[in-house]
Amino acid sequence: MASSPERIWTAALLIIGDEILSGRTQDANLAYLAKWLQVQGIRLKEVRVVTDEMDAIGNGVTALAAAYDYVFTTGGIGPTHDDITVDAIAAALGVPVVVHPRAREILAGYYGDKLTDARLRMARVPEGAELIDNPRTMAPGIRIGNIFIMAGVPVITQGMLASLDGKLEGGLPVLSRSVGAWTQESAAAATLLAVEKANPGVQIGSYPFWRQGKTGANFVLRSTSDDQLAAVAAQLMAALQEAGIESVDGEI
Amino acid sequence: MASSPERIWTAALLIIGDEILSGRTQDANLAYLAKWLQVQGIRLKEVRVVTDEMDAIGNGVTALAAAYDYVFTTGGIGPTHDDITVDAIAAALGVPVVVHPRAREILAGYYGDKLTDARLRMARVPEGAELIDNPRTMAPGIRIGNIFIMAGVPVITQGMLASLDGKLEGGLPVLSRSVGAWTQESAAAATLLAVEKANPGVQIGSYPFWRQGKTGANFVLRSTSDDQLAAVAAQLMAALQEAGIESVDGEI
Repeated sequence: MASSPERIWTAALLIIGDEILSGRTQDANLAYLAKWLQVQGIRLKEVRVVTDEMDAIGNGVTALAAAYDYVFTTGGIGPTHDDITVDAIAAALGVPVVVHPRAREILAGYYGDKLTDARLRMARVPEGAELIDNPRTMAPGIRIGNIFIMAGVPVITQGMLASLDGKLEGGLPVLSRSVGAWTQESAAAATLLAVEKANPGVQIGSYPFWRQGKTGANFVLRSTSDDQLAAVAAQLMAALQEAGIESVDGEI
Repeated sequence: MASSPERIWTAALLIIGDEILSGRTQDANLAYLAKWLQVQGIRLKEVRVVTDEMDAIGNGVTALAAAYDYVFTTGGIGPTHDDITVDAIAAALGVPVVVHPRAREILAGYYGDKLTDARLRMARVPEGAELIDNPRTMAPGIRIGNIFIMAGVPVITQGMLASLDGKLEGGLPVLSRSVGAWTQESAAAATLLAVEKANPGVQIGSYPFWRQGKTGANFVLRSTSDDQLAAVAAQLMAALQEAGIESVDGEI
């Protein structure tokens, strides 16, 4: 597909799972999806984490699908009673849940005569949906409209994303480049603001850290142009030096 | 404060930061806050991650403050130009931003004659706000109504939470207990559902994993009663055994 540099393509992620909200499990899908989307030229603009409840899932997916080009969900598509993502999204879209013939075929091929009712749950989709290949454990992901329903287990999610690689329309990928300095970020604040203002199209974030009793910060420049990033990084390093702050090209 | 077991106290977290949405930084505040809230008898019901933009922050905080008892925000309260959380929340609440006298005093005591305009940004609060102590780096957190504005850097956030310990009204803490089994979770699905249905007040989540080529799952029971958890865990283990699945008391 031709990319259109003027248009910014956006996405949101809905993470479904009490295990994340209880602090028991650390989410690992957000960062992976964010980086994968960058390569596709799509920007992750919002993430929500909601409970395993019909309304929470339904309201979340409806709001995000209306606001962004793409919505990805993770979690709640396994064989157990707490896996209600498909039901919640179908209800929110006002369509029935049906067994997808191809999904049933895939599961039957995998489980043979052990295809229990519980396992057959994983062939259920909102009516009108397509499947997303799952090279890892067979039970497919689901696409309906701009909603991509994926597993919660990171290796499975990553496999599903791999099977979507290059298939979604997007724009120019956002690139980043860092300048690091052993400084309090407050000492660099005015410089960062001036350099960002002087360079439309470049965004500068400041990320302070404390290591071994020393204070430092990484300044992360983002733009869709590699040449612009290189030029602005050089400009920022010169401006920091003028302000009495030594910096390095790259992250500390 | 007396706890009222009938009432469930709820909270949401708004994570503010392009660095999380770009996948550059892995959030570490969600899980910590979730566990801290559990001890206070408050349930984390929703999390949103939004960009460093006025509207995204304002809309997020407004929606969450209306829906839950408490809202916590992390990120965007430092001294640099991309730190706009205070401005965004004040705008959303329709109040001006003012310099808090006590916050200015704290910063003046810390920075002395190096209290630049950039650093003074960290004394700005929505009018009517109180301060939250920051034992780590002095720049305080902010409470306004049911909104708690905290730092993004985890050690600082954790210090701020410590200073709020026991000060928020909550209910009975939710406890959890795990039963682990080397099984495909789909084989246990019917058993889990039956045991959960038979025990109102206990919620059972199923969390599959794959390790060294073997398939397993942890079944996590949640309830406000330790006695009930112990009884239901025993009941679940017996029911699993009847279904031909060996399990262990505790997480695998």
